Amino acid sequence: MANLRNSGFQGAVYPINPNEEEILGYRCYRSVKDVGQPIDVAVVTVPARLVAGVAEECGVAGVRFLVVITAGFKEIGKEGAEREQELVRICKKYNIRIVGPNIVGVIDTNAPFNGSFTKDMPLKGKIAFISQSGAMLLAILDWSLSAGIGFSQFVSMGNKADLDEADFIMAAAEDPNTSVILCYLEDVTNGERFLEVVRKASQIKPVIILKSGTSQDGARAASSHTGALAGSDLAYDTAFKQCGVIRAMNMSDLFDMAVAFVNQPVPAGNRVALVTNSGGPGIIATDSAERNKLKMARFNKETLEYMRSQLPVEASVYNPVDILGDATPERYKIALESILKDDNTDSALVLLSPTAVTEPVKIANIIVDLHKKYPQKPLFTSYMGGESLTEGIRILSEAGIPCYTFPEPALKAISGLVTYDALRKKLQKNKPIGPAADVDKEKVKAVFVEVLGDNRVTLLGSEATKVAEAYKIPVVPVYLVNSPDEAVAAAEKMGYPVVLKIASPQIIHKSDVGGVKVGLNSAQEVKDAYNDIMESVTRQLPDTRIYGIEVQPMMPKGNETLIGMTRDAQFGPLIAFGMGGIYVNLLQDVSFRLANGLTREDIEEMISETKAYTLLKGYRGSEPSHIPSIIDTIARIAQLSLDFPEIAELDLNPVIAYPDKAAALDVKITLSGDKQK
Amino acid sequence: MANLRNSGFQGAVYPINPNEEEILGYRCYRSVKDVGQPIDVAVVTVPARLVAGVAEECGVAGVRFLVVITAGFKEIGKEGAEREQELVRICKKYNIRIVGPNIVGVIDTNAPFNGSFTKDMPLKGKIAFISQSGAMLLAILDWSLSAGIGFSQFVSMGNKADLDEADFIMAAAEDPNTSVILCYLEDVTNGERFLEVVRKASQIKPVIILKSGTSQDGARAASSHTGALAGSDLAYDTAFKQCGVIRAMNMSDLFDMAVAFVNQPVPAGNRVALVTNSGGPGIIATDSAERNKLKMARFNKETLEYMRSQLPVEASVYNPVDILGDATPERYKIALESILKDDNTDSALVLLSPTAVTEPVKIANIIVDLHKKYPQKPLFTSYMGGESLTEGIRILSEAGIPCYTFPEPALKAISGLVTYDALRKKLQKNKPIGPAADVDKEKVKAVFVEVLGDNRVTLLGSEATKVAEAYKIPVVPVYLVNSPDEAVAAAEKMGYPVVLKIASPQIIHKSDVGGVKVGLNSAQEVKDAYNDIMESVTRQLPDTRIYGIEVQPMMPKGNETLIGMTRDAQFGPLIAFGMGGIYVNLLQDVSFRLANGLTREDIEEMISETKAYTLLKGYRGSEPSHIPSIIDTIARIAQLSLDFPEIAELDLNPVIAYPDKAAALDVKITLSGDKQK
Repeated sequence: MANLRNSGFQGAVYPINPNEEEILGYRCYRSVKDVGQPIDVAVVTVPARLVAGVAEECGVAGVRFLVVITAGFKEIGKEGAEREQELVRICKKYNIRIVGPNIVGVIDTNAPFNGSFTKDMPLKGKIAFISQSGAMLLAILDWSLSAGIGFSQFVSMGNKADLDEADFIMAAAEDPNTSVILCYLEDVTNGERFLEVVRKASQIKPVIILKSGTSQDGARAASSHTGALAGSDLAYDTAFKQCGVIRAMNMSDLFDMAVAFVNQPVPAGNRVALVTNSGGPGIIATDSAERNKLKMARFNKETLEYMRSQLPVEASVYNPVDILGDATPERYKIALESILKDDNTDSALVLLSPTAVTEPVKIANIIVDLHKKYPQKPLFTSYMGGESLTEGIRILSEAGIPCYTFPEPALKAISGLVTYDALRKKLQKNKPIGPAADVDKEKVKAVFVEVLGDNRVTLLGSEATKVAEAYKIPVVPVYLVNSPDEAVAAAEKMGYPVVLKIASPQIIHKSDVGGVKVGLNSAQEVKDAYNDIMESVTRQLPDTRIYGIEVQPMMPKGNETLIGMTRDAQFGPLIAFGMGGIYVNLLQDVSFRLANGLTREDIEEMISETKAYTLLKGYRGSEPSHIPSIIDTIARIAQLSLDFPEIAELDLNPVIAYPDKAAALDVKITLSGDKQK
Repeated sequence: MANLRNSGFQGAVYPINPNEEEILGYRCYRSVKDVGQPIDVAVVTVPARLVAGVAEECGVAGVRFLVVITAGFKEIGKEGAEREQELVRICKKYNIRIVGPNIVGVIDTNAPFNGSFTKDMPLKGKIAFISQSGAMLLAILDWSLSAGIGFSQFVSMGNKADLDEADFIMAAAEDPNTSVILCYLEDVTNGERFLEVVRKASQIKPVIILKSGTSQDGARAASSHTGALAGSDLAYDTAFKQCGVIRAMNMSDLFDMAVAFVNQPVPAGNRVALVTNSGGPGIIATDSAERNKLKMARFNKETLEYMRSQLPVEASVYNPVDILGDATPERYKIALESILKDDNTDSALVLLSPTAVTEPVKIANIIVDLHKKYPQKPLFTSYMGGESLTEGIRILSEAGIPCYTFPEPALKAISGLVTYDALRKKLQKNKPIGPAADVDKEKVKAVFVEVLGDNRVTLLGSEATKVAEAYKIPVVPVYLVNSPDEAVAAAEKMGYPVVLKIASPQIIHKSDVGGVKVGLNSAQEVKDAYNDIMESVTRQLPDTRIYGIEVQPMMPKGNETLIGMTRDAQFGPLIAFGMGGIYVNLLQDVSFRLANGLTREDIEEMISETKAYTLLKGYRGSEPSHIPSIIDTIARIAQLSLDFPEIAELDLNPVIAYPDKAAALDVKITLSGDKQK
């Protein structure tokens, strides 16, 4: 109540408490039903066992939002979870939306509104901070008051019984007082919705997320081999990239980037210019630029000539511009204005180390003036030192010019802006691939029914090939045969040479038990191979169920790639592409994208991130492979995975790429068995 | 003069100036020769053109050290460089050692001695800071006064005309008042000496180095293909690792680690325990532990039971120990003491987020008391917040317990301590491989004389093979022949099948011009192949000098590895090992070590870092390769490279590894041509 009053909230406030007549000067009501006025938001702090009753009364009173600060719900176990479900049920009935429960509350510094139990009101600013951890929110608030960082919103999400990160991120994106959205997340409630909503939000303004819990997720070792390369944190990473989120890897990065995003425009490109009064920090900043994938700007001739005519001969007019230890404010002005004017500069960073003659305040004022004159060029500073620089730093910060103690975070922040711009443009330009019409879902369904009817979840090669064919995925044909004669018939149909493989989903490494024979050139060879395989396998694995033998044409050599899919619990199908063959696990040359919202450009980018791409383009004089076939295959795998949630895993290895086509030699499909449509 | 006086220096001080009678109360002398007393150190601040004369006078007066603050030497170009050489020449004559020139000066807070032009005296502490950049030193000094970080020494190295990083690092290692050595380096003066000296220093105390200029070095693209994988920053990185240096990647890391190293003992292992009063930061710290290669400690049963009996039921007694938002000082005491006592904990980190009931000062006092009680367990803290925590942070810092704003730097620092301990133990245990006696240097010399006499720097395959054989490096024999009949004779001698290759150092990709024929099984095939190769090559490259054709036995399949050497300008031979064959550039599976001081364990570690190692161990059921042969080959390549500085580059690709041996199929050696011994 005190926070609400002290925040300067302009609306009507009605304390509800059965035992009081008046609270903090406001008339108190016994129940929300007694107020008799329209109520937008109810902030609930009653004990957990009373929350459901309060929600019911709020429903009757027409309240639209509940901010449930009260703890004692899902987070305490079964009893709490039931209590939470009851709360959700009641609110649904009355069409009330819930923030929380188990939260610090909600603050808007512009409304202004403080419906929380924080000790202080945050400074006013343009950062919306949305946190899944209440303690984190309190810690950041405490820290921000000392650091002088302001916020538009502080949202504690708690148990996310109803409203979740997708809602709050979108709300912040639509809030005119917010210019950058920071989020601390431990999980995402609904991966698909997150992708859809955040894809929109990040086109409006930057969304920077610190996602924790990566190590726990990493520990959940996925069992299958594509899965072993993936892992859930990877899905988050991929999701963030595909919906335009900037991922912060630690708490410093989160705020170092935030202060940059709040006030500085997005740079037109990645060319950064440095001005420094000392060599060492200039070199460190140059290193850091490269490490953050930025380019050092190369100034045009006029810029260089002008600086040469105005700066001491010992100064370096090339980037980093070194205006020497005795640099005057005037020298900073000449150098900084020159590089801000230069068309080859996209952003600028000014470094200052205090020497006996440095005037940090005057220099700060010059920087501020030049920023006003050239507002389109993002401008950053690093004042390296302590108390002697405090006043200068204050002037810069108040003018919205980020000032860091060391140069490295400045370059990380610039890089963040450049990345954001690229991600946003990509989202605006590229559209998700529409589903292909030439697919036969019924045929796939029929195969799955048959497999599950046989009490299996792993498809035989011939069955998986049928599924792939139904989706026009280019596969090398497979015939399942049950006698030497059938094998010969199949071989004659497809033409020699052929390959024979044992058909049994239980046998993983078929070669190891003599289950594979390659390069068979005649009917006799095929017959012999058939008998040899059967003899060898049944002798070594007498109790294994054998479905027969699979006959495939022997394919010529090409570039072996891999296309796979594992299903992430949060974000759905995660598609993998990389070098294929037997060295997949060794080489770990794999790139990932989520099938949800996948664009053709995503697929191209995914391919280009791998070493396989170097081979596909034509390595050391070999003919280039037909990349469009690979792209199309990936798109179809994505569609198949989205259309059939019952596919748990899918693995095409190798997919051989030729100059004119691609062909999957081995298709493995595993169903989840419990997720049938 | 004022700094020297104000620092409290206890020795005699003699100002030298021809125009004054007295300076700051000290009697002034016209020349150092007039003092008539023994002088240890002369701090020189006269203009550059007068420095040589002053040095000469100092020599006559028996001065032992010059601290030359004056600038205007090598850093301003040719004239300055000559002036610097003159200074060095004079000092050598008189056996005077020089610090500088072009420096801020030298400070020792314990002597105490301030022979510098800094504005302030640093706080007293146990960090020695050695900097190649004077501005950096001034910036860090200014910053350290606000941050409350103390130093034992501040050394500005400047142009390093005489004394360099190796000297200062060793001096700091021997200084009883220093417990950690920090160094900002732009280059190393003498790589070999650096390796030798720092290897000793880092066994005495931690050496943490921030090396800048990595991006400039990176730009110097090495021409050869092993070189393209290497690069000079890599040599620094390798050198640091091999001589026990902890490398800081940015300025924050440098000091975050320093405060940890100064006061905390080295942990016995990598198992870290966390206590937190909030979930979010606990998860973030857990993620960060894994990212920094630390293990989360698993407490023993007694610890868990005790905590369970003493803490609220909602608390989590597993690591991270979550003592909840309303955690009292008593609860911190129970949890922290329990984990400090536990044998499964090597280090502990306490996290505190301010809530309404948190008592940061009382908790700080408890942490300090427990640290005194369990001083052998390194203890770290992260107080996440602002002004409300200042007093608590002060208490912790004064007791030597590092306190960070966010948890991540704490875990990076703990990881730094663990790494240091491992590096130090490795240096203490492992000794450099002595040179093998069974090598024939004269034979190698003779080959080089012949090659250079032929005006070549690239050896023919047959010549390179001779060199390798002289060093007992296992190579597949190569015969250089000049007629079909000679080819047949060679083939019969070694046995069929054989391979024929064109012998011409100018032809890089021999296959592309029809210069290679493999799998030749008879005299007729060899003759035909000889003629085909000659015809094809001379037709396509009519102006290329052909030395004949090389005949080699055709080797069976095995694991293809690569062993290479490039010579780094600073640190000498840099040895490369990885997967070999034609995909070397694509796979980039390469690990590096410097030949200087190489131990057998370094080689083992080098091999184990690669994917090639997975193959060598026996991949997917294949027989393991003979790794000792690879180790021995690497050791011999290292020795050959050290013995013959005229070898600029060396490349064995592939070295085929078999179950019982290794054999290099192709040996390429290039001489520098100008570095003959």
